[in-house]
Amino acid sequence: MNHFIITAKDKDSSARCGVLQTTHGEIRTPVFMPVGTRATVKGLLPDRLEKTGSQIVLANTFHMMLRPGVETVEKLGGLHKLMAWNKPILTDSGGYQVFSLAKINRKGDDGVEFASPYDGKKVYLDPKIVTNVQNRLGADIIMCFDECPPFPCSQQELHKAVERTIRWAKICKESHANQNQHLFGIVQGGIDANLRAECTKELVKLDFPGYAIGGLSVGEGYENMKNTLDSTVSFMPENKPRYLMGVGTPADIIAAVAAGVDMFDCVMPTRNGRNALAFTWSGPIRLRNSAYIDDTSPIEADCDCYCCKNFTKAAIRHFFNVGEMLGPILLSLHNIAFYHNLMDKIKQNIDNGTFKSWAEQMSESPAFKVKSQPKENNDE
Amino acid sequence: MNHFIITAKDKDSSARCGVLQTTHGEIRTPVFMPVGTRATVKGLLPDRLEKTGSQIVLANTFHMMLRPGVETVEKLGGLHKLMAWNKPILTDSGGYQVFSLAKINRKGDDGVEFASPYDGKKVYLDPKIVTNVQNRLGADIIMCFDECPPFPCSQQELHKAVERTIRWAKICKESHANQNQHLFGIVQGGIDANLRAECTKELVKLDFPGYAIGGLSVGEGYENMKNTLDSTVSFMPENKPRYLMGVGTPADIIAAVAAGVDMFDCVMPTRNGRNALAFTWSGPIRLRNSAYIDDTSPIEADCDCYCCKNFTKAAIRHFFNVGEMLGPILLSLHNIAFYHNLMDKIKQNIDNGTFKSWAEQMSESPAFKVKSQPKENNDE
Repeated sequence: MNHFIITAKDKDSSARCGVLQTTHGEIRTPVFMPVGTRATVKGLLPDRLEKTGSQIVLANTFHMMLRPGVETVEKLGGLHKLMAWNKPILTDSGGYQVFSLAKINRKGDDGVEFASPYDGKKVYLDPKIVTNVQNRLGADIIMCFDECPPFPCSQQELHKAVERTIRWAKICKESHANQNQHLFGIVQGGIDANLRAECTKELVKLDFPGYAIGGLSVGEGYENMKNTLDSTVSFMPENKPRYLMGVGTPADIIAAVAAGVDMFDCVMPTRNGRNALAFTWSGPIRLRNSAYIDDTSPIEADCDCYCCKNFTKAAIRHFFNVGEMLGPILLSLHNIAFYHNLMDKIKQNIDNGTFKSWAEQMSESPAFKVKSQPKENNDE
Repeated sequence: MNHFIITAKDKDSSARCGVLQTTHGEIRTPVFMPVGTRATVKGLLPDRLEKTGSQIVLANTFHMMLRPGVETVEKLGGLHKLMAWNKPILTDSGGYQVFSLAKINRKGDDGVEFASPYDGKKVYLDPKIVTNVQNRLGADIIMCFDECPPFPCSQQELHKAVERTIRWAKICKESHANQNQHLFGIVQGGIDANLRAECTKELVKLDFPGYAIGGLSVGEGYENMKNTLDSTVSFMPENKPRYLMGVGTPADIIAAVAAGVDMFDCVMPTRNGRNALAFTWSGPIRLRNSAYIDDTSPIEADCDCYCCKNFTKAAIRHFFNVGEMLGPILLSLHNIAFYHNLMDKIKQNIDNGTFKSWAEQMSESPAFKVKSQPKENNDE
């Protein structure tokens, strides 16, 4: 039996619903995956995170191998035990972090040497090492080590990054030694449709159990993202899950679902939540605003999250106003619940055959007024 | 029926167990009350706080009247609604905060004018205003406005503070206009046994539903505290609850229970938790210590709190090491649970008639090695 079953297909777009099987349980797609870079979604205890409707969370290989280190995670019995999270986990390979966060000393076709942002210590990573580290961390879904080029960059640089990403994907696949994990390939190629197509085709030859689209949401803009998505996804096999990395706003996600994407992660709900911005279906609101000083209503009247069921806007404003942790905690919780609600609505509308009209209606919604944030420093 | 029923008395000391009735439910004493100065116990969602065994929490009148302001709290339907806490709440009067935190402009027999530590704005407080504010905040137990003198201070200053505290207690009693609330008197008098006795007797004449001992744990030391407690409590009626404010270490609490005290609050579990110190029955441990880097055991094997049931020492160390909120959250949670466990053991030993031998045995315990912290800046 395939690990990914498509349960519904939209007649008007490439959107679909599915079920992805993993060692720690099944995931209903399209799915939003909250980001827990350093083995915790900031401020949220795991049982609370689960109650928001989270099916799977992300952690980051780059960060985990530097702190606390893969040996420690292994001794603790793996990432799930460390995090006290018994549902699926996905580890990003760290490719993005190496190329965006670290001071790179030396980059070659084999690997990359950089200075740890924690203590400046030299670290060398190559696809074999990264795969081995992820095998040992023990996430349910792991990612190939890729080179994520900056945007914009020269054609030469872009070609080089794609070439290395393909070469490294082969090595990752060969090195992968933990059959409890799905190893996903990552497509690079900037906004160059030909390069994206080439990269996708090469990765598909390697027959990964899932494919990711990397290197988007780095400042290329909505139209470029949409066009690139279409030209990438069309070369992917239908029966494998597709994951758009680091994206994005509600509008980005709906567009990507229409293009056939199944999985998403983004720091927007949590990072914005910590900065007092709450997502609502009437548009985002800033809880520091003095307009809410006496507002006895919840952030969203029909939201079932713990924040909305228990706290008024005025109370949340108060917590932010006096610098209490509860402000960031409550809004992180609500915003994650909002994203899961968004995914639920997407699934329902695909199931009901109403996805296209709903998406069109949504595109007029104030909830879509949130701007994309370029992904720099996107590791939370 | 009395609002306070004594259910067990220790034969060897003044320790007792009781049940205190309030508008939001009953409280089993001796009780530890976690501190939620600004209407939140730092980092803990209310349902999680309740699961640690918390029966009642503190909030602070001084802070609440400055931020978000009593009008706002009233509009939100009172403190319970603001905090999303439907069990008992106690508000401290703010006397301690005025005299320890604020820049005082003018102090007289009638009241005190000070600069708000938030924005420098002039604020005037007197016993009538403070009582009215507390009536409107709506806590179940409210406190008289007292003058808390520094330690050490001159005899003249101490006399003056006691005189004002008594005078103000009368005004608080007369102004008190919310019969859903118990108004407690506060005894001052430093470590002067005669002054404490005098202050207690005068307050007892006013017939409050409970009596607090203020002005201790301000640097006077364990022996001074114990002696002062004895000379104060002996003048209090037996059938009223007694509350030792801002105390303390496990050793302080056991000594005070032996002296006949029923209620305690202290920032030690939460403030220490945020600084990576965990209370255990084998003594306090510091989770930043590299000794715990690979430690797969929980903080305390037989502790039932969410932290101990789910997280290893190594994981908690990791969260502190990388500056994640989950570290402070987990240890605040555990330390509050530890304090509630301490109170449970106290209650059981009083019930079983074994309190004295247990307390003696405990005084040898490494859990008692925690030092008192002078109360300066004790508003969290």
